[in-house]
Amino acid sequence: MREWKAEIIAVGTELLLGQIANTNAQWISQQLADYGIHVYYHGVVGDNLERVKSVFEDANKRSDLIFVTGGLGPTDDDLTREAFAAITNKTIKEDTVTMDKIEQYFVKANRQMTPNNRKQAHVFEDAYVFQNPVGMAPGMYVETTTARWIFMPGVPREMKSLMTEGVLPYLKQQLQLNTVIKSRMLRFIGIGESQLEHDLKQIIDHQSNPTIAPLAQEGEVALRLSAKAANDQEANRLIDETEKEILNRVGQYFYGYDEVSIQQQLVNVLNAKSQSIAAAESLTGGKFVEGLVSIPGASSVVQGGVVCYAPSVKQNVLNVPKEILEQFGTVSQECANELARNVCSLLNATIGISFTGVAGPDKVEGKDVGRVHISIFHASGKLISEKFDFQGDREAIRTRTVKKGYELLYTFVKNL
Amino acid sequence: MREWKAEIIAVGTELLLGQIANTNAQWISQQLADYGIHVYYHGVVGDNLERVKSVFEDANKRSDLIFVTGGLGPTDDDLTREAFAAITNKTIKEDTVTMDKIEQYFVKANRQMTPNNRKQAHVFEDAYVFQNPVGMAPGMYVETTTARWIFMPGVPREMKSLMTEGVLPYLKQQLQLNTVIKSRMLRFIGIGESQLEHDLKQIIDHQSNPTIAPLAQEGEVALRLSAKAANDQEANRLIDETEKEILNRVGQYFYGYDEVSIQQQLVNVLNAKSQSIAAAESLTGGKFVEGLVSIPGASSVVQGGVVCYAPSVKQNVLNVPKEILEQFGTVSQECANELARNVCSLLNATIGISFTGVAGPDKVEGKDVGRVHISIFHASGKLISEKFDFQGDREAIRTRTVKKGYELLYTFVKNL
Repeated sequence: MREWKAEIIAVGTELLLGQIANTNAQWISQQLADYGIHVYYHGVVGDNLERVKSVFEDANKRSDLIFVTGGLGPTDDDLTREAFAAITNKTIKEDTVTMDKIEQYFVKANRQMTPNNRKQAHVFEDAYVFQNPVGMAPGMYVETTTARWIFMPGVPREMKSLMTEGVLPYLKQQLQLNTVIKSRMLRFIGIGESQLEHDLKQIIDHQSNPTIAPLAQEGEVALRLSAKAANDQEANRLIDETEKEILNRVGQYFYGYDEVSIQQQLVNVLNAKSQSIAAAESLTGGKFVEGLVSIPGASSVVQGGVVCYAPSVKQNVLNVPKEILEQFGTVSQECANELARNVCSLLNATIGISFTGVAGPDKVEGKDVGRVHISIFHASGKLISEKFDFQGDREAIRTRTVKKGYELLYTFVKNL
Repeated sequence: MREWKAEIIAVGTELLLGQIANTNAQWISQQLADYGIHVYYHGVVGDNLERVKSVFEDANKRSDLIFVTGGLGPTDDDLTREAFAAITNKTIKEDTVTMDKIEQYFVKANRQMTPNNRKQAHVFEDAYVFQNPVGMAPGMYVETTTARWIFMPGVPREMKSLMTEGVLPYLKQQLQLNTVIKSRMLRFIGIGESQLEHDLKQIIDHQSNPTIAPLAQEGEVALRLSAKAANDQEANRLIDETEKEILNRVGQYFYGYDEVSIQQQLVNVLNAKSQSIAAAESLTGGKFVEGLVSIPGASSVVQGGVVCYAPSVKQNVLNVPKEILEQFGTVSQECANELARNVCSLLNATIGISFTGVAGPDKVEGKDVGRVHISIFHASGKLISEKFDFQGDREAIRTRTVKKGYELLYTFVKNL
């Protein structure tokens, strides 16, 4: 199969002013990845004839499949057609199907059609035209001597509709896209990005199909394996093999595939082991339980929690003995253990988890910002506790604490 | 003032695969607009040395102020420095401040530093270096014969921090940006975007300096006033005048300026009125208290809460009488009232607030998805309760519930 070098260009000053993000480019990229088409560039240019022309000229030289969104509307600053016609000498005609639609629209709305509305029906004479199922301006496929161009409106709903119903099926046939690209994401927790890459360096360096791309995320790492093959089965086989090699080395940190979250996996394993969870949250303020409750079906395993932000709540609601608070303070393993044990029994769960620490900006009880204790208690009496010194600002410390809680609890429950 | 032709380039294959949208370009564009700098191009290029070089070369020719995000990390596919060095012959050195930070990080985290981490400390010899307040790789300002370049990491949180604290103040001086564009955001809650626009139509239509741009956000609306003037004082005077006109019409919905959040204002007013808050959260799962605890200084007014996700927790921990649960169910005003009253006394706060409802995907007790009850109880005996039917998916319903809680509580406390 030919390797297509694709490029996506958005035309519109509103993007350069930051009024909207270029989510069209993101969405088109995702679609093309599934067809095995590599996108090499995204570009954004404003509603200025000379600059649009120059961006189009560059693209026509360096890419062979070019997607343009925007600049097809009725107003004077919609310049996409004019710019492309200027660099290619293509002639423009009126698309009768579209023109009928526009005229009917104005009749139906009982409004006078202003002349500039005709412009939306303009297409290149030699273009293959895709009618717009949800708007006015149609999409177009047109060729130059060096490249193939697809033009679509910039309104995301119209663009997506045109792509799905018209452009992609057409391209599949026109470009004979018979290679399959399959991707699989492997998710890891409890190992840093640089450590993971270090442990897998040999595999990554010697691997070209599937390719392996590490992606760092808050408190976890993912590896994206992408294989190219003649069919799904072959692609999956290639990915399976590499996955096996990877998991042989770092399998103990693996927790799931693709878009699954650690919270989802935690809910799953709690379900599988018939466990229920209650949390005592001080510095995390409810974030831990909140993350679990965001998973549909969490109600079968989440009892709830106590946000014991004030020391008095630790003492009066969660019965941490006054002596422990006085001797060790609220930010201590001793306090964390009591919190985990007592929230477990108070909420009648099989497992209690607790978070106490210093989110900052100030020290607490002489303990540094970032110091965190997490304890996990099982109704059988099993108790674990860990101490951390997290870095970052208040938000980062709280987020890392919660993520670490999911990680510890996931491992704890898996091994029950 | 010189007219700067700016360009923003993002380096990263993850953008071309559509895994994330280029929100960095959007955000930077917004900032530059405030300084009166015109952005002419956005570009995205993958982690490929030759292509990054060619994009850099084009930018160096056509633009005179170039912002690059991404490709400064520790791994082999982070190529931004190498590409720029190759086209400019600039030499690279190790920034000692950054290197110290990286080494300390690994010592503190008790982890081995892999050699690739040194790369994050690499800077161009003649660069002005901006230390990264929330991450490792620093930002850089560096000049070529034709253009000025700014390099920043691609992680949005790091990029924004660097821009705000380092890059923008530096550029203001370096580029002598002496037309001042001042913006002020007015924040409103409890009024919809279309209603606000309707009430202010006359002012918005007749106003050009400052301009007035409405921005809808989750459960609230903001107006951005932007004035252009010769100096700060004059810009502020123009904004003050328009603000006064606006607040004359819709002042009762106004809650704060700029980046202040309703949570922050709520913490402020609780402090001012010497009140403390406890929350009983069912469908919101801790999200309400979590949002308050994210505000530094929340500890003076937030006692904590009980996440009473399971009905047994409502009954056993928060003492909702069995009869109420049987007669009205957990999703009822009666239950919400008990929860607010009892969490207030259990956690020894002056105000209790409660949330109970149906987040979906399924109905509960025959009540539709989106039905929510919020009650607020004051230790003096005052009690209010409201019923809502929110739309959207599970996440949207939970988010809207929490936002509505902040709004109701803010108004409640203001009027105490």
